[in-house]
Amino acid sequence: MTAPAVGAQLLGEIREQPAALERLLGYASDYEDVARRMRMRRPATVRLVGHGSSDNAASYAVYAFGLLSGWTALRDSISLSVYYGAELDLSHSCVIALSQSGRTPDVVEYAERARAQGALTIALTNDGDSVLAEVCEAVLPLAAGAEHAVAATKTYTTQVAALALLAGSATEDGRRIAAGIQATADLMREVLPELEPQVSELAMTLAFTGRMFVIGRGPEFATAREISLKLLETCRVAAEPLTATDLAHGPVAALDGLFPVWAIASDDASLGAVREAAARVRGVGATLIASGTAAAELEGAAHVLSVPAPPVGLLTPLLSVVPGQLLAWALARAKGLDPDRPVGLSKVTLAL
Amino acid sequence: MTAPAVGAQLLGEIREQPAALERLLGYASDYEDVARRMRMRRPATVRLVGHGSSDNAASYAVYAFGLLSGWTALRDSISLSVYYGAELDLSHSCVIALSQSGRTPDVVEYAERARAQGALTIALTNDGDSVLAEVCEAVLPLAAGAEHAVAATKTYTTQVAALALLAGSATEDGRRIAAGIQATADLMREVLPELEPQVSELAMTLAFTGRMFVIGRGPEFATAREISLKLLETCRVAAEPLTATDLAHGPVAALDGLFPVWAIASDDASLGAVREAAARVRGVGATLIASGTAAAELEGAAHVLSVPAPPVGLLTPLLSVVPGQLLAWALARAKGLDPDRPVGLSKVTLAL
Repeated sequence: MTAPAVGAQLLGEIREQPAALERLLGYASDYEDVARRMRMRRPATVRLVGHGSSDNAASYAVYAFGLLSGWTALRDSISLSVYYGAELDLSHSCVIALSQSGRTPDVVEYAERARAQGALTIALTNDGDSVLAEVCEAVLPLAAGAEHAVAATKTYTTQVAALALLAGSATEDGRRIAAGIQATADLMREVLPELEPQVSELAMTLAFTGRMFVIGRGPEFATAREISLKLLETCRVAAEPLTATDLAHGPVAALDGLFPVWAIASDDASLGAVREAAARVRGVGATLIASGTAAAELEGAAHVLSVPAPPVGLLTPLLSVVPGQLLAWALARAKGLDPDRPVGLSKVTLAL
Repeated sequence: MTAPAVGAQLLGEIREQPAALERLLGYASDYEDVARRMRMRRPATVRLVGHGSSDNAASYAVYAFGLLSGWTALRDSISLSVYYGAELDLSHSCVIALSQSGRTPDVVEYAERARAQGALTIALTNDGDSVLAEVCEAVLPLAAGAEHAVAATKTYTTQVAALALLAGSATEDGRRIAAGIQATADLMREVLPELEPQVSELAMTLAFTGRMFVIGRGPEFATAREISLKLLETCRVAAEPLTATDLAHGPVAALDGLFPVWAIASDDASLGAVREAAARVRGVGATLIASGTAAAELEGAAHVLSVPAPPVGLLTPLLSVVPGQLLAWALARAKGLDPDRPVGLSKVTLAL
């Protein structure tokens, strides 16, 4: 498959992800060092801040830290401290500030305040010379390399891998996680050429879709958020992420035959809830798209986009996001939009 | 205005909200007692769990506890502990479990586990004899009274008021908050008859709308989430809540003239960000609906639904949600749907 001119940047960056993950592994010892500093704090909370894809990766960190290190991680409210001036005691907190460019204004301001309030502040960024890196005590390289398409792809997957590596390193489990990331990069390299034609076919059937729910639970809620954001920004589809349980508590009433639902099914403890949600979707006549390592387990799916299972279950989101990234590229093209440059967006968002 | 047959329950419960808030105030001393017990814990985190509207009220609690008591409150992941079995030390945590019926299965299970892991567990429910009340150490009455429409309204506003009262009582500020709730109930009683005809007019213009963003920042993000959920469940509108900043980080690219945006503007520190988001919405030709205490400050809005400012700024969300509740009722009727009984939903969701 020759890379086409329109959307070549986005597709190129999607394909580059296995290499980006491998680059990250070259910095494993930096992650161990910072994890050691976090451990010394015995943190009551690990606070993550970021916008867009960075905030989606933060959703993943709730599970990575909760399951690998037993720490409470949360996506903190930036506005609570930056705009409303809340005075919180952060001496038992670690802050992880996520910004591809390291220039997001309110993330920088949050990090400055948090450091003054006693938190250990860590910048996770592509730019080690950025203002965010400057205001934080510790800097972790993302090593995703320059990203040219406006929609983040390799930045997101390296953020997810970086957060898993950091959480694993916090309990001396870093080597197992690093090996898992390497194996996942290999699997991603294998599955990409298989997924590309499957997703192109799906894109044609969705060319006139205006709205969608994307369902994922547990660590895959991050994936549901990230796939939704890609479809919103590149394809103008009003895609909303929901947990399997959210769906039952109201939104299911909005579904009909013109409102497809994408369900991410992993072979883990959440599968029962996702299977139940998928059955409700089919029950009201909505089209079901199934992806993930357990995609084949969802009955009645019109489209099945399976990905292989990595050796470390918690790393599954690295693979399950790929069909969504590819769909964003293919569907934008099917709709006559430029996947690389969505209207009204710029790569670095400096607005409040 | 005579209550019509179709949707009479929902409209009746919307109108009953001032009285429900006053009933809650009758239990102020219970809230003070529980706040005292929370204070003795010196909690590192206040963890809120609930689904649907209860989870939306939990979004509000992040600001109520952060600003009134200086505590870190978070919407905790239920799946992290209930499905994935994370072992967290909760001895320095308070848990507030929100469930109208007190019967939501995974909320009950979360509370049981959290209590075993050392947390102070508090049930906030309409049913003091429920299984949730039984498994928690402390029970706070919501006092909203029986709610018959499937879509929650008075349960949501009493939850928001209850969380403000609890957070205020934690720093002996309970009396000021209680007085503020009383004043807000009075303002709500005054503004309801003014809003009803305004919202009915808006409903006619939205009868063929399939999607919408609802923008709110800070404490009003809870309002944005709750208005979105009402529109999803009763009107089949794919309404997605976003912070003002979320909008700029991607979703703005999806907007066009058929994709209206509802912006909640409060006269507080977030107004600048909301005003900026509103300008971007108008810039791409999307219809802007402005609500809140500072609705009139958003330039170029096609519809303005103003609410009065309560004496305690943090209580504004009690009023700013009302136009959205009324729109859910009016728009469902305009679309020929039954506002009281959305298809596929039941009042108590027992599914996982």
